[in-house]
Amino acid sequence: MGLPQRIFATFAFLFASALPALAQTSHKPKPEDAIRAADAAWLKAYEAKDVDKSVAFLDKNGSMLAPNTPIATGKTAVAKLIARDLALQDSKIKWHPDKAGVAASGDLGYTSGFYDWSFKDKSGKVISDTGKYLTVWKKQPDGSWKVLFDTYNSDNPPAYYP
Amino acid sequence: MGLPQRIFATFAFLFASALPALAQTSHKPKPEDAIRAADAAWLKAYEAKDVDKSVAFLDKNGSMLAPNTPIATGKTAVAKLIARDLALQDSKIKWHPDKAGVAASGDLGYTSGFYDWSFKDKSGKVISDTGKYLTVWKKQPDGSWKVLFDTYNSDNPPAYYP
Repeated sequence: MGLPQRIFATFAFLFASALPALAQTSHKPKPEDAIRAADAAWLKAYEAKDVDKSVAFLDKNGSMLAPNTPIATGKTAVAKLIARDLALQDSKIKWHPDKAGVAASGDLGYTSGFYDWSFKDKSGKVISDTGKYLTVWKKQPDGSWKVLFDTYNSDNPPAYYP
Repeated sequence: MGLPQRIFATFAFLFASALPALAQTSHKPKPEDAIRAADAAWLKAYEAKDVDKSVAFLDKNGSMLAPNTPIATGKTAVAKLIARDLALQDSKIKWHPDKAGVAASGDLGYTSGFYDWSFKDKSGKVISDTGKYLTVWKKQPDGSWKVLFDTYNSDNPPAYYP
């Protein structure tokens, strides 16, 4: 076997060995992929400042446990909280999940991660907040994931809390 | 059939009809009973101000998302947060779950409810806080339920937050 052939054989071998690994990393769906996708889609609705679309991610019995205000349960109550936050001047909300998990039965799961939030207060001063969140997701009869509980709180000392 | 016999037959029928309902309400264990029991046992460890016993309720990868401090993950980090809270002068913590649920597979669940917390600050002034919490529980190989995530935040306006 000449050199060009050996090189070809080596590359063919490497390519064949790499296939299962490629298939595993790029194609095998994990149970939590759908829940991470729902988490990302929910953020897009927030970024678009679309209250109705954001509220549509809630389960019909969904609750939001926001800091410094009582728990809100049901779409009407949660809509008020979301509308309040999105209406803040120059409100910019970003979050990304750090962990995601789904029960073996695939009907209940969670995402948890970090958020950055900034807005201008009445005087035009920029208020910045960073913190963490926990969302519990419930699989719906149509196969979509909806928010059963969502809660977050700030990493900042009390005085800096918005 | 005479009147007394008809009455007996009617009562016998009612009694037989009621049996399944009685069995269901008083004897049939619900999947979330064990998770509510774990939630109550965890509170007892807090009430006893037993840091080690309280930390023992955490999954080995468990996280606490406490307000105004970064997320704590793992028993060593969570122990510091619990020790800090239990060391406050006259610290009194109470909570009760409002909702509890378990995945169909019985490996993941949640409790969510309300807390009351009071303590004395350095000057001896009593600080009182009320709020809500969300706990995600993971079934362990030995059948016990441990805390995968625990988070809470205050209902009070920012200025009153401890």
